[in-house]
Amino acid sequence: MRLHPSSLHGSLKDPVLGSIGFLNEVMSRFPEAISFAPGAPHPDTLEDVDVQRYVEGFLDHLVREGRTPEQARRLLLEYGPSRGIVNGIVSDALRRDHGIDAAPGALVITVGAQEAMLLVLRALFRPAQGVLAVANPCFVGIIGAARLLDIDVTPVHESAHGIDLDGLEETCRTAREKGRPLRALYVAPDFSNPGGARMSLHCRRRLLDLANREDFLVVEDNAYGFTATTGSELPSLKALDTRQRVVHIGTFAKVAFPGARVGYVIADQQVTSSSGTKLLADEVAALKSMVTVNTSPLCQAVIGGMLLEHGGSLVELSRRKSEIYQRNLTCLVDALDRYVGDALRPDIRWNRPQGGFFVRVHLPVPADSALLQISAGKYGVLWTPMEQFYLDKAGDHQLRLSCSYLDVKDIEEGVRRLAAFFADEIVSPHRGRTM
Amino acid sequence: MRLHPSSLHGSLKDPVLGSIGFLNEVMSRFPEAISFAPGAPHPDTLEDVDVQRYVEGFLDHLVREGRTPEQARRLLLEYGPSRGIVNGIVSDALRRDHGIDAAPGALVITVGAQEAMLLVLRALFRPAQGVLAVANPCFVGIIGAARLLDIDVTPVHESAHGIDLDGLEETCRTAREKGRPLRALYVAPDFSNPGGARMSLHCRRRLLDLANREDFLVVEDNAYGFTATTGSELPSLKALDTRQRVVHIGTFAKVAFPGARVGYVIADQQVTSSSGTKLLADEVAALKSMVTVNTSPLCQAVIGGMLLEHGGSLVELSRRKSEIYQRNLTCLVDALDRYVGDALRPDIRWNRPQGGFFVRVHLPVPADSALLQISAGKYGVLWTPMEQFYLDKAGDHQLRLSCSYLDVKDIEEGVRRLAAFFADEIVSPHRGRTM
Repeated sequence: MRLHPSSLHGSLKDPVLGSIGFLNEVMSRFPEAISFAPGAPHPDTLEDVDVQRYVEGFLDHLVREGRTPEQARRLLLEYGPSRGIVNGIVSDALRRDHGIDAAPGALVITVGAQEAMLLVLRALFRPAQGVLAVANPCFVGIIGAARLLDIDVTPVHESAHGIDLDGLEETCRTAREKGRPLRALYVAPDFSNPGGARMSLHCRRRLLDLANREDFLVVEDNAYGFTATTGSELPSLKALDTRQRVVHIGTFAKVAFPGARVGYVIADQQVTSSSGTKLLADEVAALKSMVTVNTSPLCQAVIGGMLLEHGGSLVELSRRKSEIYQRNLTCLVDALDRYVGDALRPDIRWNRPQGGFFVRVHLPVPADSALLQISAGKYGVLWTPMEQFYLDKAGDHQLRLSCSYLDVKDIEEGVRRLAAFFADEIVSPHRGRTM
Repeated sequence: MRLHPSSLHGSLKDPVLGSIGFLNEVMSRFPEAISFAPGAPHPDTLEDVDVQRYVEGFLDHLVREGRTPEQARRLLLEYGPSRGIVNGIVSDALRRDHGIDAAPGALVITVGAQEAMLLVLRALFRPAQGVLAVANPCFVGIIGAARLLDIDVTPVHESAHGIDLDGLEETCRTAREKGRPLRALYVAPDFSNPGGARMSLHCRRRLLDLANREDFLVVEDNAYGFTATTGSELPSLKALDTRQRVVHIGTFAKVAFPGARVGYVIADQQVTSSSGTKLLADEVAALKSMVTVNTSPLCQAVIGGMLLEHGGSLVELSRRKSEIYQRNLTCLVDALDRYVGDALRPDIRWNRPQGGFFVRVHLPVPADSALLQISAGKYGVLWTPMEQFYLDKAGDHQLRLSCSYLDVKDIEEGVRRLAAFFADEIVSPHRGRTM
């Protein structure tokens, strides 16, 4: 049987769904190239991961809590509650480390942050009602999840200081006038992927006030907050949220390791009907029972044990990782300064985020897949075209550099190659583009 | 912030989404009751599960395939391809054990069968186009996934011999006339949950011919096929499928263990456009990148290692489990014969499935939650009301008994209690219902 693409769901035509496949394909064709494309973890962060020890630590914890060893063991092998089995440990850590006061029952443990996004969007959006605003540029995962659910997405400009709040207010007004009010805003206030933006404390408070005034929810993605330098941390939107306006999504992919596929969502909003009051987390868990049933209890045990081994502290768990990523980011920006530097400015510009995995570079020409092929084939260096992160054409001349999984010497060498590529192919176009 | 249920997605109002929560709640209130409700694995099937050994076995396999030990180790901890990392092992097993010829690239490894259902439905259905036919009664997971995606579902009667093919043909005609043609049929041809139905070889071939003639896809769920007695196995629809009409969904929850949350889907249909040909599996994997990114490679390793330890054979992996479930099913039907038996017939009737986990009992009164409370509180025995498995009212007088996780003596004692409950509360109503 042959199927025509037009008979399949429309999301499959969206470039965001093919973006990961495209990059993997390019990377596999140029295995010797230094790749600034993937936001994968640094190998050093995986060095001391000991899955077996974490599982045993979690089993001991269950026994201390009153289960028999056999009951504890079975808990990891059987089905389990859709909401999760490490909610208490995560709830404690969020309270202690981040001042987020969320009861275990307000949390749902998910298959990474991605499932949390899909579930939250599904809970909050009805067909052809309400609009999702997203930062522009934006993480592809939220756009993809919205496309999958046929949810309308509207972009709001994001600068280095985060989402444009005046623009957002204007978006609210327009949406209301069109009879499709803003239902939620997706935002990563700390070192967004790919923008690298960070919202000030003042802007965070202004955003929460606006959400309350305009009656929308804020879906906060906290994937990169842990990369803030010690002393520079800002409270998350959820920590500032006194009116349950914020749904907070976190992941263990970066602070622990991605292969566990464990994330979480705090959804402490009350859902009130004539038959009583539930939490939005209850609804998210009910939806989850029809998406993945429950997050692997084995994987939850690995993460739970890992967290317990670090005194139940997310900050302790992520401290060394945070230092590695800070080092890499500093190294990347320094190398750009040295190798690209003033010689190629102002044609080539880049931002200087204070955390996260990513630097954006502006080119005077489109940073498209044709240019990527030249960069990969002739100069041995890979990057991500920024266009896939934009809902409009604003990012066509930008590329994203990820420094998370490279070693310092590879970053150095990669930027040297990039500089040659920029000089030969872009700033001195008289030397000719070969494609 | 308070949310009103009417502002949330409509699926949250569907009873199927609350069904699991309801049963868990009843079970937690009556911990001493014998529960015929959950389709959980038998504890004996978990006895010799050794996660660490399976992981090591899979790592050895990766090294034999040419990876360094460190590369193999990292593969389990990092992100991975959305389509999975054990596709080759599963593909080999399906060919060897079940005569299903599907290349590794035609498989996607999913977070259990549930995610496979959601992804396949999402790929195949566009908003307000096409209809999904399901057996009636039907597994709640497929109905829930359809509700989540706002896909219209139409029931087709299922008898002990499987789906009513004449009724299905009629459904096709009606749907076509309404301008909403049948896009797909969900069916479990071997010992369906909850119906216990099994399709004959003749009916399987007839169904495939009908699918081809009426141009719909068959989504085959093979969760319980492994419980067939040796020698009585029938080829799956996929094994008979010469025209790529069948999308085949499998799970390791029953043949390995549920806590791994690993399932798979075979989608070898060609998707042809002007830019080339892909497989439906490629599209399913692209959708998966926006649902869970990838199935935990750690969990895939556990399942991969477990399968390899059994010579790469699904049949070997499930042999002992199949015997346990056959024993339990025989015990349950025998106990019903002995304890309920002729004394209460014809008021109380039940079916005699040849495999699977479930027996259905017909009562002369509604088997509703009020009756369940009496059964649990006064007689110490729990079961599942069948109404949640029906799209119409046909199941209101039925209950489902699951025998999968109980020991023989508990089945015996549970049926004794059931018989007392039936005799006192249902067949002799003059003795009065207490609620």
